[in-house]
Amino acid sequence: MKQKLVLAYSGGLDTSVAIKWLDEQGYDVIACCLNVGEGKDLERIQQKALKVGAIKSVVIDAVDEFVNDFARYSMQAHTMYEGVYPLVSALSRPLISKKLVEVAQAEGAIAVAHGCTGKGNDQVRFEVSIHALDPSLEIIAPVREWKWSREEEIAYAAEHGIPIPIVQEEPFSIDQNIWGRAVECGILEDPWAAPPASAYELTAQLEDTPNEPTYVEIEFNAGVPVAINGQAATFTAILEQLNIVAGAHGIGKIDHIENRVVGIKSREVYEAPGAMTLITAHQALEALTLVREVAHFKPIVEQKLTETIYNGLWYSPLTKALLAFIDETQQTVTGTVRMKLFKGQAIVDGRKSPISLYDEHLATYTSADTFDQQAAVGFIKLWGLPTKVQAEVLAEKGTMVHE
Amino acid sequence: MKQKLVLAYSGGLDTSVAIKWLDEQGYDVIACCLNVGEGKDLERIQQKALKVGAIKSVVIDAVDEFVNDFARYSMQAHTMYEGVYPLVSALSRPLISKKLVEVAQAEGAIAVAHGCTGKGNDQVRFEVSIHALDPSLEIIAPVREWKWSREEEIAYAAEHGIPIPIVQEEPFSIDQNIWGRAVECGILEDPWAAPPASAYELTAQLEDTPNEPTYVEIEFNAGVPVAINGQAATFTAILEQLNIVAGAHGIGKIDHIENRVVGIKSREVYEAPGAMTLITAHQALEALTLVREVAHFKPIVEQKLTETIYNGLWYSPLTKALLAFIDETQQTVTGTVRMKLFKGQAIVDGRKSPISLYDEHLATYTSADTFDQQAAVGFIKLWGLPTKVQAEVLAEKGTMVHE
Amino acid sequence: MKQKLVLAYSGGLDTSVAIKWLDEQGYDVIACCLNVGEGKDLERIQQKALKVGAIKSVVIDAVDEFVNDFARYSMQAHTMYEGVYPLVSALSRPLISKKLVEVAQAEGAIAVAHGCTGKGNDQVRFEVSIHALDPSLEIIAPVREWKWSREEEIAYAAEHGIPIPIVQEEPFSIDQNIWGRAVECGILEDPWAAPPASAYELTAQLEDTPNEPTYVEIEFNAGVPVAINGQAATFTAILEQLNIVAGAHGIGKIDHIENRVVGIKSREVYEAPGAMTLITAHQALEALTLVREVAHFKPIVEQKLTETIYNGLWYSPLTKALLAFIDETQQTVTGTVRMKLFKGQAIVDGRKSPISLYDEHLATYTSADTFDQQAAVGFIKLWGLPTKVQAEVLAEKGTMVHE
Amino acid sequence: MKQKLVLAYSGGLDTSVAIKWLDEQGYDVIACCLNVGEGKDLERIQQKALKVGAIKSVVIDAVDEFVNDFARYSMQAHTMYEGVYPLVSALSRPLISKKLVEVAQAEGAIAVAHGCTGKGNDQVRFEVSIHALDPSLEIIAPVREWKWSREEEIAYAAEHGIPIPIVQEEPFSIDQNIWGRAVECGILEDPWAAPPASAYELTAQLEDTPNEPTYVEIEFNAGVPVAINGQAATFTAILEQLNIVAGAHGIGKIDHIENRVVGIKSREVYEAPGAMTLITAHQALEALTLVREVAHFKPIVEQKLTETIYNGLWYSPLTKALLAFIDETQQTVTGTVRMKLFKGQAIVDGRKSPISLYDEHLATYTSADTFDQQAAVGFIKLWGLPTKVQAEVLAEKGTMVHE
Repeated sequence: MKQKLVLAYSGGLDTSVAIKWLDEQGYDVIACCLNVGEGKDLERIQQKALKVGAIKSVVIDAVDEFVNDFARYSMQAHTMYEGVYPLVSALSRPLISKKLVEVAQAEGAIAVAHGCTGKGNDQVRFEVSIHALDPSLEIIAPVREWKWSREEEIAYAAEHGIPIPIVQEEPFSIDQNIWGRAVECGILEDPWAAPPASAYELTAQLEDTPNEPTYVEIEFNAGVPVAINGQAATFTAILEQLNIVAGAHGIGKIDHIENRVVGIKSREVYEAPGAMTLITAHQALEALTLVREVAHFKPIVEQKLTETIYNGLWYSPLTKALLAFIDETQQTVTGTVRMKLFKGQAIVDGRKSPISLYDEHLATYTSADTFDQQAAVGFIKLWGLPTKVQAEVLAEKGTMVHE
Repeated sequence: MKQKLVLAYSGGLDTSVAIKWLDEQGYDVIACCLNVGEGKDLERIQQKALKVGAIKSVVIDAVDEFVNDFARYSMQAHTMYEGVYPLVSALSRPLISKKLVEVAQAEGAIAVAHGCTGKGNDQVRFEVSIHALDPSLEIIAPVREWKWSREEEIAYAAEHGIPIPIVQEEPFSIDQNIWGRAVECGILEDPWAAPPASAYELTAQLEDTPNEPTYVEIEFNAGVPVAINGQAATFTAILEQLNIVAGAHGIGKIDHIENRVVGIKSREVYEAPGAMTLITAHQALEALTLVREVAHFKPIVEQKLTETIYNGLWYSPLTKALLAFIDETQQTVTGTVRMKLFKGQAIVDGRKSPISLYDEHLATYTSADTFDQQAAVGFIKLWGLPTKVQAEVLAEKGTMVHE
Repeated sequence: MKQKLVLAYSGGLDTSVAIKWLDEQGYDVIACCLNVGEGKDLERIQQKALKVGAIKSVVIDAVDEFVNDFARYSMQAHTMYEGVYPLVSALSRPLISKKLVEVAQAEGAIAVAHGCTGKGNDQVRFEVSIHALDPSLEIIAPVREWKWSREEEIAYAAEHGIPIPIVQEEPFSIDQNIWGRAVECGILEDPWAAPPASAYELTAQLEDTPNEPTYVEIEFNAGVPVAINGQAATFTAILEQLNIVAGAHGIGKIDHIENRVVGIKSREVYEAPGAMTLITAHQALEALTLVREVAHFKPIVEQKLTETIYNGLWYSPLTKALLAFIDETQQTVTGTVRMKLFKGQAIVDGRKSPISLYDEHLATYTSADTFDQQAAVGFIKLWGLPTKVQAEVLAEKGTMVHE
Repeated sequence: MKQKLVLAYSGGLDTSVAIKWLDEQGYDVIACCLNVGEGKDLERIQQKALKVGAIKSVVIDAVDEFVNDFARYSMQAHTMYEGVYPLVSALSRPLISKKLVEVAQAEGAIAVAHGCTGKGNDQVRFEVSIHALDPSLEIIAPVREWKWSREEEIAYAAEHGIPIPIVQEEPFSIDQNIWGRAVECGILEDPWAAPPASAYELTAQLEDTPNEPTYVEIEFNAGVPVAINGQAATFTAILEQLNIVAGAHGIGKIDHIENRVVGIKSREVYEAPGAMTLITAHQALEALTLVREVAHFKPIVEQKLTETIYNGLWYSPLTKALLAFIDETQQTVTGTVRMKLFKGQAIVDGRKSPISLYDEHLATYTSADTFDQQAAVGFIKLWGLPTKVQAEVLAEKGTMVHE
């Protein structure tokens, strides 16, 4: 009897060919397709897997789980990889891995397979995540193993009755979820070339955006968006709505040369209209509600968390500890941010909070002033003391530090 | 005989009143006005000081020194305070302090005075800098000392023949240099209110920007801008040009609630069209030319440097050591960035470098591929080993880590 | 009617004089003395306060709370200030502050007083903590205010019938709790002088320690010591026992020039026999049970936590977030460490854990080896890729990076 | 004609067998043996290589270069890996790599070989360093490739006339240089077992150390040791002398479970008597001569540098930038430290500096006091302001933060 294997199935050529190929390697293939908000036709994909040769085809809707457990932390921790883009694929891989492992355990499978090549980040994320969750599972990466050229793959597909996309090979390689869309390859491999309009799907070209801004008020409670324009809504619903409205204003286009965990630089284009709007709003609310000491150390934790997730270590104990830090900081991130969406920008237009730490009476220069200005004299004296003592010591020795 | 004192003189009401007040305290006041690119009428200011009672009035053009020794590091180290705005006043204060000390030493003055109040950051920056450079100088802060209301100050001015601005008090408190413009007070003290158009001077309102983008190519050599649109130019000239052209496209408007070194939050609006364009371009070039390890640690140094400068410690030995790190990283930041200036955004449209580390042959998925995909198998095995070993150990004990 | 004030009372001259002085300032003084394990005669102190003029005298035993809520984190986070000594006074101040505030609120007092001078860290810790817990309380620092010389203080005491220590002024200024003992002043102010034997009380001089080592086995469960030499015991009991036995071997003497939060350097001598033994054992157990990624980022959190506590910010939201990180890391810190206490050193003699991540079969070079050595080839290829690509690029341009 | 290859030759069985094996693979082998202070019989090794089949045998004395360019940074940056031991092998590998590349380039070799297995750190360090210096060189790791058992290797040696060590396989695997000695394997693979006396060679057992301390005065100039006990000496000479005298007192024994770059934990024992004495002395001098801000950020740089070197990235641009930071901090690290060497401990007994920043008049509580205690009042007010404002805001809302 054949052993069972669970394959992360996308419905595309690579994983369709993989079903047949894995079958030939001696596995009963269970296809598993996850919805994380990329807008795929799940019904069609489920049927296709069976048609191509899977013994079972599972479709899982994981959008809410993705938003609440993964995208939420991306927003709260402002996980901008290399300071530039919110994580996209890096956030969905651990969730997909978790579902693959759950299906494998439920079905008694001994192996899991994914469709990644050998030069991207996703193979790292899948394999490390799967083994963190179940180190006993075998992992197979058919595309990385078979090393076929495009032509060889199509020949194999033709030979085995696997549907071949009519259009010539897509110009880009794309991954998408409700938090964002990642695009690479093709013309993008020239860093001197601007991304063509065809690389974008979720965001309007700046030239085509409306000449009137849209204002949205986003309300947060303890770091989670809970209402939009005064209407209570789930985080998922708010994100979906913002993807549309901010996308129409051309917000969230990102173009970056990034450092992959496998050691190379790659040029990527991202679209994240909802994500960028939410992160910007959340940052503005934190500026109002976090004490300085938290505001100044949280970025260190954020950077570490971002790299840890990017590098495939979501299920590392380090991630859990970093998230515990983030969780603790979010308790007071409550309030409302009014965003102006206009000409490619999500602009903070106003922010307020019942527990705002901004105090007009302390900050103002008017007569309502309650700040003790004389306190500053003592403060400066002690704040600058180490620097001054050194200057005195070196002056005495005839050496000024700052020639 | 009276002792001499050097006053940082701006030509405004506060420091004009201070000349007289210090004179009454028993000092011979030497007014010292620095040009750091804020576009003041220096001739008029120089004369006004004498008219109001200074025994000497010194004007110093320090624009190039400011650009090359201070703004340059802000660009190379992306000194975005709290991730949001490039330092403005924090950069000019140490240079002004240095010039004040030089004048004081040349003139045999025993004291230095500045016009800051007791609740801002600048008093800290001036006093710590001055004492780092010459710990023997006495420092006086007349405005902080006299504690007058606006009305009392005007009465004093009227009584002593000091010109009083005809217009009712400016609605904002402003500081400006060639790197940027900082605005606070007035309506800005309400964080729920959007900044009025009148708060901005260097940047067009988004609604009024041209409907055609402007493209500029900025060439960097070892981290320093050396040409614009193919024309060699000084850093100062490039910055001046970008301030105008990027300003016209509404680029570099920033609105932030920030944490001051004196412990309060304040709402500030900034304009930095040239600075933001240059920082964005420089970041894109670094993405192409820095190895991953530098790219991922430099932000830690950048954040520390930003806070250190913001907190008034430019002349601390820490700043020197952090700048030594930055200097070392800039040696390979050479190349050209094409920026699209449009609708409030400075967009990286293309970047290239003779020493680019982006390698199409490694990154591509085409047949030109030279990356060894099998190496990834070994890499992942060892990269995920700590996580996997723990999963095995805990699985054996019946405890899965990630329930 | 007089308003009530709660005074942190130690029984010494300063706070005894303060009772009378505060009474003269118009307060009804409630003395409050906390036991945090410094071995004071609490009964005598309680009576003395009343005798000297307090309207009420409260004594609180807070040793277990101190150990479990404060010293525990010092051990788990290895809070070695400037890498050199475990926090001592900085840990007890927030707890004392909390108790003072509780008494003040229960008694309806409007103010709290402490006996610190104006140049140490403790004034900062008390005042920031008290205002974090109840910002409405007034804080008075009599010693800082009255600015008396030693002679003036004694004269005041004599005049008001306050007992004066018979011995000439103590040569050192000391603070102590169950976690350690801090000594400053006197001969210690010369950094070239070795601390005299008289500065030490808890630890034997190295010359006088036994010639036979003592071995102790300390068992930890989830980061907390739960047994010693196979006997279950509370953390407090284990710490007390270790203070004695490690003290007898001269363990935990520390001599340091430290940077105070108020800007000066001071020379301090510490004794922490139990604390240093526990921290060393805990570190060794973490080396066995934490995955690499946690082991390498935790020190960053530890340093930040140490400085935050040292600087008086225990009740800052930052501390809570940092502690949440620490808590999360401790779940797997379970196992036993055998310590050899000998000649001033707490030496890790062996460590074991049911969930040890050290795997002989992976690490060994014997035939039991299960490590896939070929994986290393791929690992090195990708690990060194950024460095190699740069070398190639620069070599091509005729510029080697490392001349 | 055969191509040339340069082999890092130690004189031991592995690399002797490698000469023959590489010859059979078709290379003319040039043996290259470096002296980095491990006390080998270089003459004998040089001859042995030729006897075994090398076409040329090169011996290079690199002790001073190692001390001045590598060990120096370990001392100045306190590169304690995982807080526990100064780097040993990680410091010599880049220097050896540099010499191998120089010989390869001079001899026209096309490849370099090293004797590392596939599970240690050193293979990573050699290969990344060699390719950073000359990416065109081929790298061969015979021991990792041939995958022989001990028996197979001895059989091969016997067959090819290669001398086989008479004693049964050494119980430990050892690497040594003038900075320290690293020991692994054998009984050490049991973390519950204490290291046997036979594991140590440079340091006396604590039980056998003298009952009288030795005092040494070490003088530093700008971070470099320049004299010992008042006698000017080179860094190398001082280190050699301290290795002997501190070793006799049993100083510098370290026992650690560490995380390797290849993902496993391994148990290692180290001896570093001179290194630990110098690092301790240097830290004490820095405590006296660095301003607080440098003292508190340098550890972040130190940790990064330590990991970067450990992970084989000495020739990364990151290392250069981190070293530039370190260099800048050392300019004022000048003075003398008196060390008491006794019973396994290098104790700071006194420290002094012509540019000491410790100021008795600021720190003291005597009447010589010049510190402005009232400044503290203002300092505390602003220092604690963020915390207090939050407490007020939350109190008003009926939520105390610290229940």
